[in-house]
Amino acid sequence: MPTMIDPEQDIVTLVNIFTVAPANRQELVDALEVATAEVMRHRQGFVSANFHVSLDGTRVINYAQWRSEADFQAMLADPTAREHMVSASALAVADPTLCRVVSVHGT
Amino acid sequence: MPTMIDPEQDIVTLVNIFTVAPANRQELVDALEVATAEVMRHRQGFVSANFHVSLDGTRVINYAQWRSEADFQAMLADPTAREHMVSASALAVADPTLCRVVSVHGT
Repeated sequence: MPTMIDPEQDIVTLVNIFTVAPANRQELVDALEVATAEVMRHRQGFVSANFHVSLDGTRVINYAQWRSEADFQAMLADPTAREHMVSASALAVADPTLCRVVSVHGT
Repeated sequence: MPTMIDPEQDIVTLVNIFTVAPANRQELVDALEVATAEVMRHRQGFVSANFHVSLDGTRVINYAQWRSEADFQAMLADPTAREHMVSASALAVADPTLCRVVSVHGT
């Protein structure tokens, strides 16, 4: 399902860049997809998670949208969600940024 | 205009994280928006640029979509585009990743 980026919404966006060894890359993508399907998408305020792999294969990026910062923080405090985040962090180095859309320029 | 993330398309995505001093943040956002309006959106293969500011104010993130890697590389080689990129790099430290969407999970 396509995901829309729209500055009119009060959504918060998590851009999480994982630096990963090639041998762990597919396992990391699989772990993130399982965590999303089993846990994240059932948390209040989840909007989307969008996984990307860098062309050079060294990074996996999650562009995730949450309805509000409060919903995102509640997810972070959830023990089951934390368990999945610990699993992902064993496979790669995460560099998360929580942000908001300020403008969108399209064709 | 909203921007869609869709794994069915052959789009390449640039996720560029700028680490910026608070005093330069708005100037950087303005410079990126001018570069997009005046140059990038007129280059072949431009799909969208989506600017975000981190909640802590230390990062600006561009999530940009290009129709193909060849179109993106042609833009990088364009002297006018390079001039704008040099201006942005004087204001912040850029950490770009070129990637492709592998999966999308939405509500």
